[in-house]
Amino acid sequence: MRTIASRSHDYTVEEFATVAGAVDAAGAGGRPHFLVDRAVHEAFAAELADRLPADRLLLIEATEDAKSYAALEPVFLELLQRGLNRSGSLVVIGGGVLQDLGCFVASVLARGIRWQLLPTTLLAQADSCIGSKSSINIGRYKNQIGTFYPPHRVLLVPEFLRTLPFDEIRSGLGEVIKLQLLAGERGFGELMADLAGLAAAAADDRQRTLARWVDRSMDVKQPVIEADEFDRGPRLLLNYGHTFGHAFESVTDFAIPHGIAVVLGMLTATHLSAALGMVPARHAEELSRMLAAWHDPHASALRPVAIDDLLEALARDKKNSAAGLTCILTRGIGRMERVTLTAEQIRAHVAPTLARLIQTGFTA
Amino acid sequence: MRTIASRSHDYTVEEFATVAGAVDAAGAGGRPHFLVDRAVHEAFAAELADRLPADRLLLIEATEDAKSYAALEPVFLELLQRGLNRSGSLVVIGGGVLQDLGCFVASVLARGIRWQLLPTTLLAQADSCIGSKSSINIGRYKNQIGTFYPPHRVLLVPEFLRTLPFDEIRSGLGEVIKLQLLAGERGFGELMADLAGLAAAAADDRQRTLARWVDRSMDVKQPVIEADEFDRGPRLLLNYGHTFGHAFESVTDFAIPHGIAVVLGMLTATHLSAALGMVPARHAEELSRMLAAWHDPHASALRPVAIDDLLEALARDKKNSAAGLTCILTRGIGRMERVTLTAEQIRAHVAPTLARLIQTGFTA
Repeated sequence: MRTIASRSHDYTVEEFATVAGAVDAAGAGGRPHFLVDRAVHEAFAAELADRLPADRLLLIEATEDAKSYAALEPVFLELLQRGLNRSGSLVVIGGGVLQDLGCFVASVLARGIRWQLLPTTLLAQADSCIGSKSSINIGRYKNQIGTFYPPHRVLLVPEFLRTLPFDEIRSGLGEVIKLQLLAGERGFGELMADLAGLAAAAADDRQRTLARWVDRSMDVKQPVIEADEFDRGPRLLLNYGHTFGHAFESVTDFAIPHGIAVVLGMLTATHLSAALGMVPARHAEELSRMLAAWHDPHASALRPVAIDDLLEALARDKKNSAAGLTCILTRGIGRMERVTLTAEQIRAHVAPTLARLIQTGFTA
Repeated sequence: MRTIASRSHDYTVEEFATVAGAVDAAGAGGRPHFLVDRAVHEAFAAELADRLPADRLLLIEATEDAKSYAALEPVFLELLQRGLNRSGSLVVIGGGVLQDLGCFVASVLARGIRWQLLPTTLLAQADSCIGSKSSINIGRYKNQIGTFYPPHRVLLVPEFLRTLPFDEIRSGLGEVIKLQLLAGERGFGELMADLAGLAAAAADDRQRTLARWVDRSMDVKQPVIEADEFDRGPRLLLNYGHTFGHAFESVTDFAIPHGIAVVLGMLTATHLSAALGMVPARHAEELSRMLAAWHDPHASALRPVAIDDLLEALARDKKNSAAGLTCILTRGIGRMERVTLTAEQIRAHVAPTLARLIQTGFTA
């Protein structure tokens, strides 16, 4: 068990052997209301159907629209109608969308109620389930509403990872790779070695490998979010790969999964660092070779995109100010830095680097 | 200047001699967006019109509907449309409604932005401006959505109190009286002495007296909210008068102003304490005499109300659980206690006490 410090309340991360065991533990000693991803509810019907009483269960389609400000009003009303008040609690079962909306609901209902989270995707288990953030869409603005409000307890079940399609595993691995690139040579080397046989591994072995890297990911992320929960200093380095990644998602209308976009974003940041003389070009090329298997063939979705559209998407990023484009660049593995690029640097380096990478499929 | 500790960020309370000076100070060194009560904007047109640029000003009708979840969506969208992002800030000018909605918007926009508050009513200055809470309505549920997120700076301007109708001053005094009843004999005695001539006082004298009791109110409230910001322990005593007060507001469809309802609620709690043998009956009768001027003639609005409707409103209170009716009772001035009453106690004591007080206009 892991305990994570947070300004609003400390919380635990515990591993459970089975979905059934985790759901029983989450429901013990209380009458929580359950917010559950409808697809997860179907995939684990045997474990969930009898354990989640209909009068305390809300099934939610995990779409981007479901986590909009307007779409949440009926969720709040239904929970209030069912009698949920400040002494009540929520159990949220699902991936990123369920976590975002569950966190937001829990944080503002009666000014914050107790909630537990069972993350069901690799991305949610390895990365987003700790760190307190929720991101809600409003109108045409994505992720502009939110709160910092961690679950009171995270229940990790490796069994949830067993049924995931390999492409979704790869997307989750994007953030896992990012965290080890931030951690340093040793962690990154061990991860690459472990992942080499993942695609061909038997289900049991794959599940064990992923569970180990969920834990190793938290080892890296925990001290960062504890030192800077509200994202004002060191935590910003966790955005490595995200400035460009968000732009890649946005210009392809989210055809590229988030974690894959982060891998492409990290490669862009690394090649850009080389163009700016921060790191040798061969480091960027080597990283391109090592990570190719973890984004292929999604880079091709960027082929038809105009560079100007990409630059415009970068300019819209919420992390950017009038001063210029702020992104995380690198001086090597474990040596990331926050840099603000001028308009001149964007013209001279960002645009050509993007053009070249898209042309070569992010190989050089 | 006062500095108040909070989990999310410490904040200051500063007094300014003029509205103009406070607005200049709030806008200095930044380009904040202003959320302003339309009525205040009209009443202080000379001070505000030139100081609040149209492209960073939103005027809001301070109605109960304005602080609903649905009504805030266009406010969020307008602010985002105007370019407000996580490095931006808000200045909120108004009373309780503006504070509630401004606090909620500031707390969830980009997961929390900087905001400053200029409270314009006595209630907001003396009580609600410190303590971090926002309360938002959703559907037919009042105050069920909210956050704990104090302003980064409170700017107090006694000049705002100068133009208030005396009935609104009385309503604000309800919470001022409550805080001194919680503080002890000395504070309460000094307050009663100071208030004796308030109705007849010249505008300057009245403003000075109110400003002094704004400050004295904060002296009482500050240590309580610093010790228990999230309302789980000692802060609950600040609900003295509120369990019954909320029921009085609710059954009269908010014909009784909040602060007046709190005075009536405190009298109810005190007479109920006497009925339960916690305090001598003469203490309750004496308090009735001392506070009559601070609720008269609003108690008459309760005359047509059926006791059963009042009991039902009490049962709906969000602070109550299945266990019974939780309220703050008293063993004397400065000696309040949180008590949960059983169904039997409600039948034997709450119902007859309410019936008698309503009959006698809360005199005995």
